[in-house]
Amino acid sequence: MTDQTDIQEPEDETDDFGLPARLFDDVLDAIEAGDAVAIDALFEPLHAADIADLFEQIDQRDRRSLLALWKGGMDGEILSELDDNLREEIIAALAPADLALAMRELESDDVVDLVEDLDEAQQEQVLASLDATERVAVEKALAYPEYSAGRLMQVEVVSAPVHWSVGQAIDFMRANEALPEQFYHVILVDPRMKPQGYVTLGRLLSSRRATKLVDLAEESFRTFRLTDEQGAVAYAFNQYHLISAPVVDADDRLVGVITIDDAMEVLDEEHEEDILRLAGVGGESELSDSVIETTKQRFPWLAVNLVTAILASGVISLFEGTIEALVALAVLMPIVASMGGNAGTQSLTVAVRAIATRDLTGSNVWRVIRREIMVGAINGLIFAVVMGAVGIVWFGSPMLGAVIAMAMVVNLVIAGLAGTGIPVLLEKLGVDPALASGAFVTTVTDVVGFFAFLGLAAVLLL
Amino acid sequence: MTDQTDIQEPEDETDDFGLPARLFDDVLDAIEAGDAVAIDALFEPLHAADIADLFEQIDQRDRRSLLALWKGGMDGEILSELDDNLREEIIAALAPADLALAMRELESDDVVDLVEDLDEAQQEQVLASLDATERVAVEKALAYPEYSAGRLMQVEVVSAPVHWSVGQAIDFMRANEALPEQFYHVILVDPRMKPQGYVTLGRLLSSRRATKLVDLAEESFRTFRLTDEQGAVAYAFNQYHLISAPVVDADDRLVGVITIDDAMEVLDEEHEEDILRLAGVGGESELSDSVIETTKQRFPWLAVNLVTAILASGVISLFEGTIEALVALAVLMPIVASMGGNAGTQSLTVAVRAIATRDLTGSNVWRVIRREIMVGAINGLIFAVVMGAVGIVWFGSPMLGAVIAMAMVVNLVIAGLAGTGIPVLLEKLGVDPALASGAFVTTVTDVVGFFAFLGLAAVLLL
Repeated sequence: MTDQTDIQEPEDETDDFGLPARLFDDVLDAIEAGDAVAIDALFEPLHAADIADLFEQIDQRDRRSLLALWKGGMDGEILSELDDNLREEIIAALAPADLALAMRELESDDVVDLVEDLDEAQQEQVLASLDATERVAVEKALAYPEYSAGRLMQVEVVSAPVHWSVGQAIDFMRANEALPEQFYHVILVDPRMKPQGYVTLGRLLSSRRATKLVDLAEESFRTFRLTDEQGAVAYAFNQYHLISAPVVDADDRLVGVITIDDAMEVLDEEHEEDILRLAGVGGESELSDSVIETTKQRFPWLAVNLVTAILASGVISLFEGTIEALVALAVLMPIVASMGGNAGTQSLTVAVRAIATRDLTGSNVWRVIRREIMVGAINGLIFAVVMGAVGIVWFGSPMLGAVIAMAMVVNLVIAGLAGTGIPVLLEKLGVDPALASGAFVTTVTDVVGFFAFLGLAAVLLL
Repeated sequence: MTDQTDIQEPEDETDDFGLPARLFDDVLDAIEAGDAVAIDALFEPLHAADIADLFEQIDQRDRRSLLALWKGGMDGEILSELDDNLREEIIAALAPADLALAMRELESDDVVDLVEDLDEAQQEQVLASLDATERVAVEKALAYPEYSAGRLMQVEVVSAPVHWSVGQAIDFMRANEALPEQFYHVILVDPRMKPQGYVTLGRLLSSRRATKLVDLAEESFRTFRLTDEQGAVAYAFNQYHLISAPVVDADDRLVGVITIDDAMEVLDEEHEEDILRLAGVGGESELSDSVIETTKQRFPWLAVNLVTAILASGVISLFEGTIEALVALAVLMPIVASMGGNAGTQSLTVAVRAIATRDLTGSNVWRVIRREIMVGAINGLIFAVVMGAVGIVWFGSPMLGAVIAMAMVVNLVIAGLAGTGIPVLLEKLGVDPALASGAFVTTVTDVVGFFAFLGLAAVLLL
């Protein structure tokens, strides 16, 4: 961040764009002192996103005091930036008049984003605080399916008849008071409002007034339907480097526009969801969630894991006699299972990501599976040699070394196969592979690991 | 995707924006038939990103035949979209004249992105294919540190003296042949080229010619330094909803501009890296990597895991006598370790993500750690009851049930503590928590799990 200019106050004084630790201390001091003036002064230069982060990072008691001191300061942009649970907490604490004030400056898509996860009573409360036109727009958006392009788009669009010239478009925009805050294209429409192409503002600005808009239209032009999934929209923005794109209804008429910042947010959320789901955490988890909420998010995966762990124990119990005869087996058996679990996780994470980015498809799935199996075999052989040596050195038994080595190769090959095959299969069955693959893959590697090691031991050692 | 208009051919016929499976078959058929005309016809309507995906998804032999058939078709945009290893493979196969042709249409930042990961010989080859002005620009960018804003920015900027009017800016742009392909702001500069603010193209277009640019300047204005890290730049774009931002040199002079699509790409790459590193896969992994490359990426983490697994086995071996006396312990012990490992992974994934998004800071770390410990305790107690029952039903021993129950609580609490504490500590030490936390946390939960369970068993059962 550089020093700012005389046009504009600095918004942030850190080098690192995060919130400076000092700011927290100052805010907490001001809360303790009940100093509303100091709070105003501290918050004044901050971006809404930073104020939201600050609210998220202090504890609930401080948050309540802060809100009481900073009455009327809370605005719609900050509410938009807050975690869902805190947004509910704060909306509940706002007087209806303050809420209406806070909503005033938001565009319809931001209001939709803000209210769609609220409970019904709060949703009503926010909708009641909007003026009539905006309420209608928001209610219309909420009628589209969740996670659809219709919910993501803004209805404020800039369009022009396809036969217009640059001069006509500029005159129209100069005369129009209600242009959206940010827009990047003028969308060309036919008389029935069907999009025919679009022109970037840069080309518009750099062309003579007499030039026809249609001659400036971008070569590449994509539209989305109201019902397209947000994930597919985000994928297309990322894949085709889109900046904004029109949304059309079932009759192909222009009804809104999606911009890159909305798509970026969806992509970010999907990434977050994938990473958390892979780790067995509910995708909705936030750092500001309470102990109870967090426990509920973590519990289901641990419960699934308990069942798979008991299943693996069942395999071990088949070999109680073998272990009794040679207790070294009990010492070594977790190594085989653990290596298989880790190799399986590697394969499945790569597969889950590649499915999400549409790089893993029917056309290359067998080649990838073959690759993963060979990788498992090679790594398995290397670690087999190491573990064979450990078996000999530690327990003085070459045969024990051979058994663990063989089990290692078997389990790493199976890990490669299951780690790729299971996510692909789940995807085909319509189950989110990020959510469910881990449990299946670990079960396979645990069961195969214990069975191969103890089974081979029972046959070869006793 | 809707039907396209008469201005423009459809680029993609699937609903789902991916590549249709039929296209693969058609391309493979055309390759087999050696039909260059068919290849041209199939590729003509495709976006460069889709052609790159197609090259990535077919196997190496087909790729070579395709390249031979499609000579001269390969362009810079496709090269930009390819995975690193394939890009190298294909550049190596291109004649110098074809390479020069392919590079012609790219802007300097795209060329930088394309060459920065090539080996030195290929880098030279690409640089030699550029015209002199562009080569200088690219070489200058490559002199900035890796992962710096300097490498990410484009040097093509649109700026205007701070005292200009809208009319002057429009006339200037109309007269200027070499405007960048995409730009979103006119940057206002003082006579020494220091940025003073910026104006969105939308406001410029909708304002009268006589209006002063300075009166249209955006309220919020951020600049980056050449040496700022790309990760910090991407964070700022995401946090503050930036569309484009100027980059300045050490003297605060305007030297380039970073746009949201570049930032989106960095964010995407960082996400990908985090998710892969958390799973113990090198962040550079691509689905098109060979068996040998993949084996190398996977090996280090498995090797680390082997060491930690042996460490855990060492703990078990301390209790060989205990296990010999009661073999049920060997059957049940993996359950405690596995539950701890999973709970630890949940905590650490949440912590690693929160560190990346700067939501977990010095101001809330203790509150988060407290939360994780309490979540561990509550889940631990629930599973303790379940496992106590399993111990009684399966092995008919209430005391064995009690031992596994106690060990479960201990390990889940420790998992919460280690899962949050270790990533935070690693971050403080300057180590990437995504990369290293997993090994440490699993070691802790394995060692504690086995020790608590077998130790309590030794004391209470024998």
